[in-house]
Order: sequence, then structure tokens, then C-alpha cells
Amino acid sequence: MTDRPFPAIKALVVAALLAAAFFGALWAQPRRAQVESPTLLPDGRIRFEVAAPDARTLRLQAPWAGDRLDFQRDEAGIWSLTIGPVPPAIYSYTLLLDGVRVLDPHNTAVKRWQGGNASLVEVPATTPAPYDLRDVPHGVLHAHYYASEPGGANRRLLVYTPPGYSSEADRQYPVLYLLHGSGDDETAWTEVGKANLILDNLIAAGTAEPMLVVMPNGHPVPWASRRRGIGSDNTERFRDDLIQAAMPLVESLYRAKRGAANTAIAGLSMGGGQSLYCASTSLDRFAWVGAFSAAAPDPESGAARGLLADSDRANTSLKLLWIAIGRDDFLLDRNRVFQAALEAAGVEHAYEVTAGGHSWPIWRDYLADFVPLLFRASE
Amino acid sequence: MTDRPFPAIKALVVAALLAAAFFGALWAQPRRAQVESPTLLPDGRIRFEVAAPDARTLRLQAPWAGDRLDFQRDEAGIWSLTIGPVPPAIYSYTLLLDGVRVLDPHNTAVKRWQGGNASLVEVPATTPAPYDLRDVPHGVLHAHYYASEPGGANRRLLVYTPPGYSSEADRQYPVLYLLHGSGDDETAWTEVGKANLILDNLIAAGTAEPMLVVMPNGHPVPWASRRRGIGSDNTERFRDDLIQAAMPLVESLYRAKRGAANTAIAGLSMGGGQSLYCASTSLDRFAWVGAFSAAAPDPESGAARGLLADSDRANTSLKLLWIAIGRDDFLLDRNRVFQAALEAAGVEHAYEVTAGGHSWPIWRDYLADFVPLLFRASE
Repeated sequence: MTDRPFPAIKALVVAALLAAAFFGALWAQPRRAQVESPTLLPDGRIRFEVAAPDARTLRLQAPWAGDRLDFQRDEAGIWSLTIGPVPPAIYSYTLLLDGVRVLDPHNTAVKRWQGGNASLVEVPATTPAPYDLRDVPHGVLHAHYYASEPGGANRRLLVYTPPGYSSEADRQYPVLYLLHGSGDDETAWTEVGKANLILDNLIAAGTAEPMLVVMPNGHPVPWASRRRGIGSDNTERFRDDLIQAAMPLVESLYRAKRGAANTAIAGLSMGGGQSLYCASTSLDRFAWVGAFSAAAPDPESGAARGLLADSDRANTSLKLLWIAIGRDDFLLDRNRVFQAALEAAGVEHAYEVTAGGHSWPIWRDYLADFVPLLFRASE
Repeated sequence: MTDRPFPAIKALVVAALLAAAFFGALWAQPRRAQVESPTLLPDGRIRFEVAAPDARTLRLQAPWAGDRLDFQRDEAGIWSLTIGPVPPAIYSYTLLLDGVRVLDPHNTAVKRWQGGNASLVEVPATTPAPYDLRDVPHGVLHAHYYASEPGGANRRLLVYTPPGYSSEADRQYPVLYLLHGSGDDETAWTEVGKANLILDNLIAAGTAEPMLVVMPNGHPVPWASRRRGIGSDNTERFRDDLIQAAMPLVESLYRAKRGAANTAIAGLSMGGGQSLYCASTSLDRFAWVGAFSAAAPDPESGAARGLLADSDRANTSLKLLWIAIGRDDFLLDRNRVFQAALEAAGVEHAYEVTAGGHSWPIWRDYLADFVPLLFRASE
């Protein structure tokens, strides 16, 4: 140790100084942006800024943000807009820059969406929100590839295991199958919807049963194909993929309780329609059903015949049929018609019309409202 | 069943027709975009298009794409640019729309990066690439939250378990700790780097040992804080978090082989620097080390003293010290200096200067080159 190139004490000092300078400054770092966006103001308002000296028009696209959405340019070419106050939630938005829909250039929070990406901004609640990342025990997310006859190769699903799953090695858990919307994929319920954090918080509070949450991909027929009119049998193929491949996969790899009383299915928009379809055609498999802002089936279509044609069987089989829709949702009429058909047929159900439109803020809340109802007094 | 509201045969016909119309058309779908971008041409060229009638200038930002990067506008206001041919790889790019850096509005493939997002485009290889999603057995990705004294609450890491992990219940696996760059997070190596698919393919081909791959978050000090000059001790805190919390977590939850001979650490850019630092300060824990386009330490800084000051110990402890850097990388000189210091000290290592710059196409290839070298003839 005596043939070090310089004495130990000097080395320590040099090391500390150089390590500080080196590790702090010499990684590959881009220049710091001149502006920041979005900025949350203490009163619940949001300020957006874009450095765009050469732009001619800049406008916010955000239905939740009110009517005054044009940015103002200052003499340095920085455009800014302050909106709100808006209620605490996670919102998505885009910008219209010289007529082109773009993301906020300064905001790295992005919702990737097959129908077009969006920027995200969270207005935190002063009281805890159901989706906050808290210091509670967290579950684990698992991503699996699998193959199925109806869905083809390289299908993917996510599985949430609740806190304690790895330590309580003999315990079995009920399962919620949780389905995304038409423009999303299997990652949306966790990346944007915070489903894992919502479950963590509900389980920590003792208001939800510890459960597995399985988030399959809802597009056995690729979305891009369906946009071109191909593959209108996506719903049937999804149901077959779920029952023939996804559920057996989950039941083989996880300690999942079997049987309808231990199995729920719920989803938003397209996934709400798929949930109703799966339940309607497989009442023996799903006793707990949630339809959030659902693409609810036309009662005349036959897609819900299993629910509507035999109310005795439906009422005996189902422990919960929970339907919620925002009063500003373009699917409101469709849900009203479907709910009227359930009433006329004598099928028991819960039906809520809430504030909000066809967007993520209400789906996080719906999940937080729905999950505590599941698997109570089952078996 | 006789009191259905309409006869069964009619119901079936109506159901089929309406289900087709309904499930095909009535989900919440945005209007189809007028243009598509990017489009891959058969000869390896890429065509970009943006509908921007009111824009004045549009330029591609992509160092890999050559020099002619200005879009041309047609009379309908559609701007287009064709580049290449370019070699098969997954590339990132942004656009400069009237002087503002934005993502490609028509491309939903996004790399989320703390230093600024980017659009992604893949030019597929005619021969299989190491990161292709193939019909081979796939491993499983697991996302864990954990807390640590050095890193705080709600740290996150990903664990890849190889194909067969759940069925070979008595088998133990060596572990590669795989570290991301300064602008990335723990998701980058899988979302952008395709590390899980690279491992799947190498294991299926029999050219890599089945192993666990652990991808921790490299920012115990948040990146945004470090940009403001706070927290130059990120590297030390990362090392402490890894050794005190992440490694024990992995070893408690997974069937991980213990000991340096069964433990590798590698990373890109900042993560390469962290790998060298962790190995240098914990030669007893990591016998296999990879530094990809690394923020290699200044040999005078002391950060690599454990490697440089006692070559006998380093050569006895390490089974592999593998360094690779692109000849167009801004960190090339730093790597040259470090490699010269290793040579001068008599520390055995592999050193490769490859084509390419400081970007993902070479890091996927480096991983595919590095992983087959690991855990061979160990123990």
C-alpha cells in the first residue's frame, strides 16, 4: 500500500473534491431548459410555458381547463398561459403549436396512447388522493408474455400481487381482471391509472381485500387493424384469449382462488364493454362486474343476452354489477339505454352518474370506489 | 327461455350484425390521422410526414440521419422528409417545428427521458436482431418498490427472471445488476433497451447462462436536484442503496446465487461509471463488470482506486472487466485515459472502440455482446 502514486491523505482530499466535481457534472447532461412547464401554483392554478420565439400561435388543448386557452407571448419569445384553479387530479393535455398538435416540450410526463400521446399534469390534493404514492407496503407488478390460439404469439399481461404475497406463502387470493380502453394497452391501468397504488392504499387502509389484479391486453386484433375496419371480432377473441389462455396462465403461476365468487372483471370504455360481454357470456366465471364509462352493449344486440334474457340466473350468479358514467361522457346515452334494459329485465345492479367526462380522473376514482366492494362475504 | 323479447334466430342475426357494427365502430376512437409517420421504405429509408399547413419551418433532429434534414412542404400543407437508407436499429429523434423541439405528432412510440422525450423509429433487420421479439420462451419482469436508508422511501427496481424460473423451483441463478444512464430511470433498459428480449433470445440460443437481471434506479438523489447542483454524492448513495437494500431484497425474494463469482454489474454512461465505482469499492461483491460508453472515472480521482491501486487484488477478484465505447462518443477521451491507467497499473481488461456514438443502438449491441461472457466457468 506504500507505493500508491500519492499519499493517502492527499488522495482522500483530492478524491473527495474530484469525485464531487466529476460525478456531479460530467455525466452526459443536456443543457438546462430555459423555461419549466407545467408549474403548479399554490392555489391550484397551473402555469404552462413554452420557449417559441418563432411561433405564431399557441393554444392549450384540454377540455378540463376552461375556455381561455390561448398562450400569450412575451418579448423574449416565451409563451405562457395560466389556468384554473382546477380540482386535484391527474390531467392530460396537448398543445396546438402553429396548428400542429404536440406535447408540452418541457414536460417529460407522457401518456403513451395509441390514438395519440398526451402530456400529463398532476394537481396534488391537500388531502391524500386514492392514487398517491404513500409510505405503505407496496405490491409487486409482474409482466408476462404468453401465446394463445385466439390472440396469437407474444401477448402480454400484467399481474399485481398484493403486499404480503411473497411472505404468506400458503395464502390464496381472489382475482380482479382489469381491462383498459380502446386507445390504451395493458400498461395503462398502472402507468396512467395508478391501479397498483390505489390497491396498495386501499389494502393498507383495510378497506379492500388483498387480491391479485390482472391487466391483460385488450387488443388481440391490433388496434391499427381495427381502425382500418379489420377484425370486428376483437371482443369475442379477447374473451376467448382471456378464458383459454390468460386465466389458466394466472392460475398456474399465482396462488389464485378459483370460481366465480372469487373472480371479478371490470374495465373502462372498451374494457367496460368487454367486461359486460365476458360476464354475459360466462356468468359461471365472473360474479363481480364493473363497467366504468363503458361502451355498453346495445340491449338489442345480443352481446348482453346472458345478462338480460334470464334475470333469475343473472341475479343468482352475480354478486355485483356496478355501472358508473360521467354526466359529460359521450357514452352517457348508451349507458342510460343499457341501464333501462337492466331495470326492465329485473337485473340487479348499481348505477351511478357522476361528475366528469370520458377521461382518467374519474376512472381512478371509480376503481377506488369499486375495489372495496369486491369479495366481501364471498364463500 | 321462451319469454325472450324476440325469437332466437332473428336474435342471432341481429346480434351478429349489431355486434359487428357496434364493437367495430362504437368505442371511443379518435379520427384517423391524415398522414402517417414514420413510414419505413423497403430499401431502409425512412419517410417522415407532418400535417402542418401553418408552420413555417420543420426540421429533423437526428444525428444518425445525415445532413439533409429539412422537411419540404406540399401545397396541402403536408411536410415530408425521406432519409437514409440507415442501418437496422432503433433510433430516437425529435422535430424542430418553427424552432420548438417537439416529438413527431403522428408517432406514438416515445422514449420518456428525464432530459427531454424523443420519438422512436425502428428499422428492422433482414436478419434477426438481438432485441427482436421472437417466438421463444420469455422471461418475466417484476417491478418492486422498496425503501432504503441511503435512497429513501419508494425506490423502485425491476427484476427479470429467465424462462423456466417458475418451473425449475430448486434452481438458483446468477445475477446481473444492469444500470441506466443519467437521463433515464429503471425502466429504460427494458422499455428502450429491450434487455429482457435480448436475454430471452440469448438464452433460447444457448449462448447465455439463464440469469436474473436486476435494474435498479440510479438516482437516489433525484436528477432534477442534481441539475441544480444538489447531491453530488449520488454515486456513493447509489452504491450504498444497492448493497444495503437492493441486493438483500433481491436475494430474499428470488433464488439468487450469492458471491462475487455469481454477481455481475454493468451499465451505460452514468451507469457505467456507477458500475466501475461499485466494483472498485466492493471487489468482494462483483467479479464481472461492464462499462458501456461509461462516464469512466478520472484515474486521479480515487473513484477507481480499488481497481488501479492493487492490480494483483483486482486481477484475482475480477473475472471480467469489459469496456466498450463508440468512436463518435463525447466520452471517448475519458475512456481512453481510463483504459491507459488500467494498462499502466497492469489490470486485465477488455477494451473495444466500436462504431457509433452515445446512443441506444450501440448499448443494445453491447449488452448482447457482454451477456454471453458472464458466469462462464464460474465457481
